[in-house]
Amino acid sequence: MRYPLITLTTDFGTSDHFVGSMKGVISGIAPEAQVADITHEIAPFGVLEGAFVIGQAWRTFPPGSIHVVVVDPGVGSARKPILVQAGGQFFVGPDNGVFSFILREEKHRIRHITSEKYFRRPVSRTFHGRDIFSPVAAHLAAGVKPGRFGKPLDACILLDNLAPLPAGKNSWQGTIFKQDRFGNLITNFDARDFGALRKGHFELVAGKARISALRSNFSEGAPGEIFVIEGSSGYFEIAANQASAAGLLGCTAGSPVKLKLT
Amino acid sequence: MRYPLITLTTDFGTSDHFVGSMKGVISGIAPEAQVADITHEIAPFGVLEGAFVIGQAWRTFPPGSIHVVVVDPGVGSARKPILVQAGGQFFVGPDNGVFSFILREEKHRIRHITSEKYFRRPVSRTFHGRDIFSPVAAHLAAGVKPGRFGKPLDACILLDNLAPLPAGKNSWQGTIFKQDRFGNLITNFDARDFGALRKGHFELVAGKARISALRSNFSEGAPGEIFVIEGSSGYFEIAANQASAAGLLGCTAGSPVKLKLT
Amino acid sequence: MRYPLITLTTDFGTSDHFVGSMKGVISGIAPEAQVADITHEIAPFGVLEGAFVIGQAWRTFPPGSIHVVVVDPGVGSARKPILVQAGGQFFVGPDNGVFSFILREEKHRIRHITSEKYFRRPVSRTFHGRDIFSPVAAHLAAGVKPGRFGKPLDACILLDNLAPLPAGKNSWQGTIFKQDRFGNLITNFDARDFGALRKGHFELVAGKARISALRSNFSEGAPGEIFVIEGSSGYFEIAANQASAAGLLGCTAGSPVKLKLT
Repeated sequence: MRYPLITLTTDFGTSDHFVGSMKGVISGIAPEAQVADITHEIAPFGVLEGAFVIGQAWRTFPPGSIHVVVVDPGVGSARKPILVQAGGQFFVGPDNGVFSFILREEKHRIRHITSEKYFRRPVSRTFHGRDIFSPVAAHLAAGVKPGRFGKPLDACILLDNLAPLPAGKNSWQGTIFKQDRFGNLITNFDARDFGALRKGHFELVAGKARISALRSNFSEGAPGEIFVIEGSSGYFEIAANQASAAGLLGCTAGSPVKLKLT
Repeated sequence: MRYPLITLTTDFGTSDHFVGSMKGVISGIAPEAQVADITHEIAPFGVLEGAFVIGQAWRTFPPGSIHVVVVDPGVGSARKPILVQAGGQFFVGPDNGVFSFILREEKHRIRHITSEKYFRRPVSRTFHGRDIFSPVAAHLAAGVKPGRFGKPLDACILLDNLAPLPAGKNSWQGTIFKQDRFGNLITNFDARDFGALRKGHFELVAGKARISALRSNFSEGAPGEIFVIEGSSGYFEIAANQASAAGLLGCTAGSPVKLKLT
Repeated sequence: MRYPLITLTTDFGTSDHFVGSMKGVISGIAPEAQVADITHEIAPFGVLEGAFVIGQAWRTFPPGSIHVVVVDPGVGSARKPILVQAGGQFFVGPDNGVFSFILREEKHRIRHITSEKYFRRPVSRTFHGRDIFSPVAAHLAAGVKPGRFGKPLDACILLDNLAPLPAGKNSWQGTIFKQDRFGNLITNFDARDFGALRKGHFELVAGKARISALRSNFSEGAPGEIFVIEGSSGYFEIAANQASAAGLLGCTAGSPVKLKLT
């Protein structure tokens, strides 16, 4: 039998013992499970950012993969730990919206994790990544059936306003989901819904700039030019060629973006 | 036979080839051993910080795990490379105090690593992580007996003053071990020794603040409130709810903290 | 059969989904292949830096290892994806010079990767790390023969001016390849070519400093002293004892360095 892969996505950073402790717990329960870091650099308490990143990464993983997501400002409070089955994969984390991108797209089953026998004891009040989420994921990898962790939930918390809102004729008010490493700004204009942008007749307002150039890869951009590109994320992105669109525009995650089809 | 897990804790950062080179050496000697990064973000030459992080993380790992710790300002000098057996696990690194938290708590056996046949040749003067510590850990993972690496040592270097010092009646002078990613300040007040704080009758002085609030999880804190919490580390921590106590107080690792029971 | 190890070296940083997505693709195709991060902190578009890091790290890995290197400012343009066999190992990435250090030292065979059946579909215009390089590496790890990925190329792009240039009698004009985590400055003076420095009769000019001290390990340096050391990289480095030579000199990657043998 091959163990499924366990991935980790957190806001723990990589300078503390937090991530190492999660890996230790997993290796004690499911020693043959491979563990892959997705990122630990989600901004502290950045539930939307965490939701976006796991929402992007999970589709590349094979069936049965187990994703532990710990962006958890409510740790130790009444917020529930949950186990989500969706798209043939598993997701373990707090019930705070961090799985929104998956839940809105995939059929799913949600469980409230309550079986303390799968927890690390004693359970701290402040580090459920180590004491609840990692051991649950590892027991799941080791073959424990999902139903053993707790009862089904009818619903869980979903982030709202993920999609742009209509703002007049042929206009929408959107936002930036994420500024990536290169300064590209990933908007919430989904290429499946806004395919019309591919025709190039649009104006996108971000910061003080009005952007109407469309490019199909970065190196097509002229020096200093800010353009729109259909990103590998499935969303339209604002970008520049070997330069940071975020820096040029003074925009980042959460900044408003207005679209008008022309 | 399953290989034990090898963990890496260093001050090498993650932007150079250093960590990759260690992984390469390990995979050449013990190709089936899994390697888990604990952290590479220990501050350069931060022996106490490294000691604290491995002191936290190791307990979550299963028996037989091998921990390579390279925070090594004295690389290439007369400081000894050592192999420590403690708590059913193995620790490989320089003799500079980096294993202090483990050694003061667990029965242990220390060996001076001298068998050059387990080194990568030639041994550089500046990168023993690649040339000594990684290959020794990998040979250990591959089944070489601990006694083959060198002779027992009676003692090794221990960091002193890890615990708070008495400072008058019901008062102690302590310090901050570490500022974590969220700005929580982990003090050296061990919950096993200072359980009296759980009663809530205390004053903790850090920076210009006098803290007497005790909370059991972060979200119990009022906005802007600085409080004490029994951390998942086993030490009392100074924290705030979704805010950085370190930033609010102007304190960080090494800052003094005074405790008075009231 | 044991799968070869796959390493990742990119300029993707670790805060986005990029690296996680590459790992997901690999685990879907070659689930038992171990994946080792070398670094994701190459400066954006830093082809020389990426070339140096993989040029350092690859030699520590065992035969058959597969190295994916994605520093790719030309992604989506006409630049070719290539597969290099050299030194008993494999290298997958863009044809932009990123394999220069390996190619100038090892016999090699280069292939133009064109077999789309080994790509992830659809192939985006901006993320070939996920859509081309990772799946190709994973199929290679899973046993696909190199010849299946595309036809041989006679040549590929090489970075030039890697070595210092003569600048008068017993003088050379060199540069800094990389500033490492500790602030050591790795020059392009190769110890195999400039072994004469070991005699200690030289003057190295970097920033405003004239350096003629030679040390064999960091702790031999006096406080505040800047010295030359034969680095573990095989190049001479400019260093200081527990201090940043880069900070003291105001130099970094790309800074000029002049050597005179005296």
